[in-house]
Amino acid sequence: MKLKQAGILSFALLAGQFCFGQTAISNDFKPSTLNQPFQQYPQVNSQGYARFKIKAPQADSVRVSLGLGGRGGTLLTKGADGYFTGTTEGPMDEGFHYYHLTIDGGTFNDPGALNFYGSTRWESGIEIPAHDQLFYALKNVPHGNVQQILFHSKSTSSERRAFVYTPPGYEKNTSTKYPVLYLQHGWGEDETAWSNQGHANLIMDNLIADGKTKPFIIVMTYGMTNELKWGHVKDFKIDPFQTVLVDELIPYVDAHFRTIADRKHRAMAGLSMGGMETHTITLNKPDIFSSFALLSGGIYKPAELEGKTKPDLIFISCGSRERPDGVKKAVNELKSAGYNAVSYVSQNTAHEFLTWRRSLHELAPLLFRK
Amino acid sequence: MKLKQAGILSFALLAGQFCFGQTAISNDFKPSTLNQPFQQYPQVNSQGYARFKIKAPQADSVRVSLGLGGRGGTLLTKGADGYFTGTTEGPMDEGFHYYHLTIDGGTFNDPGALNFYGSTRWESGIEIPAHDQLFYALKNVPHGNVQQILFHSKSTSSERRAFVYTPPGYEKNTSTKYPVLYLQHGWGEDETAWSNQGHANLIMDNLIADGKTKPFIIVMTYGMTNELKWGHVKDFKIDPFQTVLVDELIPYVDAHFRTIADRKHRAMAGLSMGGMETHTITLNKPDIFSSFALLSGGIYKPAELEGKTKPDLIFISCGSRERPDGVKKAVNELKSAGYNAVSYVSQNTAHEFLTWRRSLHELAPLLFRK
Repeated sequence: MKLKQAGILSFALLAGQFCFGQTAISNDFKPSTLNQPFQQYPQVNSQGYARFKIKAPQADSVRVSLGLGGRGGTLLTKGADGYFTGTTEGPMDEGFHYYHLTIDGGTFNDPGALNFYGSTRWESGIEIPAHDQLFYALKNVPHGNVQQILFHSKSTSSERRAFVYTPPGYEKNTSTKYPVLYLQHGWGEDETAWSNQGHANLIMDNLIADGKTKPFIIVMTYGMTNELKWGHVKDFKIDPFQTVLVDELIPYVDAHFRTIADRKHRAMAGLSMGGMETHTITLNKPDIFSSFALLSGGIYKPAELEGKTKPDLIFISCGSRERPDGVKKAVNELKSAGYNAVSYVSQNTAHEFLTWRRSLHELAPLLFRK
Repeated sequence: MKLKQAGILSFALLAGQFCFGQTAISNDFKPSTLNQPFQQYPQVNSQGYARFKIKAPQADSVRVSLGLGGRGGTLLTKGADGYFTGTTEGPMDEGFHYYHLTIDGGTFNDPGALNFYGSTRWESGIEIPAHDQLFYALKNVPHGNVQQILFHSKSTSSERRAFVYTPPGYEKNTSTKYPVLYLQHGWGEDETAWSNQGHANLIMDNLIADGKTKPFIIVMTYGMTNELKWGHVKDFKIDPFQTVLVDELIPYVDAHFRTIADRKHRAMAGLSMGGMETHTITLNKPDIFSSFALLSGGIYKPAELEGKTKPDLIFISCGSRERPDGVKKAVNELKSAGYNAVSYVSQNTAHEFLTWRRSLHELAPLLFRK
């Protein structure tokens, strides 16, 4: 007995030494909450490490696109059982991350993980539990619905899709009309992003249950009318999408949902490229929206707003690993120029969805208060 | 010029001979309608052949699970450009098919195709255009919505999801109440199947636009409360799901949607294992549903129905490649015993979604007529 105990202790010390001063990797790995049903991998631990396990007995090489930047991700090691396994070299930022596998030179998804539309393809997704994850958790509170609508678009000769969040109570309070937030995804994403990656509906359900925001409708549609490849975001032409949004979708929503159909009760927000869209369309169409929000998607300058109807709110946010100083400076300039402007910086996050979940959580209570 | 023309002709003849009497493969391949945006492969031709192209430069072997049965699918051939390509040995049945790739012994999805939940995993999907595809096409007609609802389930201590199709006009006709069809997926699928693979909403939109069916609500939820692996479908216990459906979901739907909340205006249908569920629950709870439909999911025997309130309709269907004689015989026996029973056989389809799309298209106009 004594020998055995000594043996265990000595092994632990050796393991500690082996880490050369690094914190040891905690062994509390659990399946990611975004795994497919019944799938044990990928796993994440309480420190933010991610561990992968991929079956490919005859493959030579399996690499995961996640891990330390600039080193090509995490190369997995092949075991005698035909499984490739590996752990990220360091902990990752809290929140949602897109990823994919490179198997013998080809790009594939992890069969253990759910897929999310980003980079113009359905990619694997993994969730590093955030310390504040409860604000977007699925709880036993009254839930709003996310409705898929299909609307005819004359300008593009197509039937187009949007998702509409209606808050809890919408079906019952049949004499109540609601304000509307038009909420755009980023480049390479689509109208599914704010529900699937962003949990916009759960964020709203929880805020409403806590009495922290007025109930309002959120409309999420596809913000592209043409193909855009990497590096060509600046070639994006706003006009066709602006027509779909302003001349087709808004009238459809106002005709089919109980909205308060005026400028004062209509806001637009977007993340990344959706922020560019928000910036351009709110300036092009100053009579349509009263509140504007850019999430990791640029800034407004006071000069751009001069001579237009004053917005009720300008909200600008980003992650602390982006350009928080630019955001704060822009908001200070807007405030000095007399605008109701608010900045928000998400701590320890980059250009990723936890930044935008948190931004929506901060933005919602500020909307439609005037 | 003459030589060149002769050369082309002779090549065509040789190609014809090479087919050994088979019809030549038509070269009108087009991207499958279920491809991811901007993806050119997989492709299908007018005869029902499917062609695949997968990039995996260092892989040894790529196989597609589709193709002729019993031969392990279609083995792709590696080209000098690092792409594996290949065409199914023969034409496939019209309609939707699940598939996956086997790359060096591991199971992955085709990065070109959209994914659909089946076999308890998100699988690739491909669509062989059917001669009658217009009945489930996305057309410029008034569209109903598909609403994601989240309801609390006391019996399973969880928040559960369902999708609710509300017909066109539901938001406007606020004094109208609607009948409800509860529609179940098959084994290994989930509540997304009837919308994604089945196009249930588009089938209804088109039928309603043509005046061929009364508008009604469809509710689709997850029909499993425990894990079931291959070959263990007979171990399935209906009680926990029956409780969720009858005691939790139906009251939630009746409280949150404008339903006619009585037996006469409530139907249940299911495909495959969803048919087993429909069979059992409609017999266990004869006061809840008035119309029953089994799509490739078993039959009712007159003796099972004796002494119970008579159903208004019993609908039993399958594909012609399943057991159509069993379906017709069962319906004849029900008719002889005085029941309003209808059979339907989908021509040239097997245990797959085109059978069930067509079945729903036949079933809907027969519902809620009494």
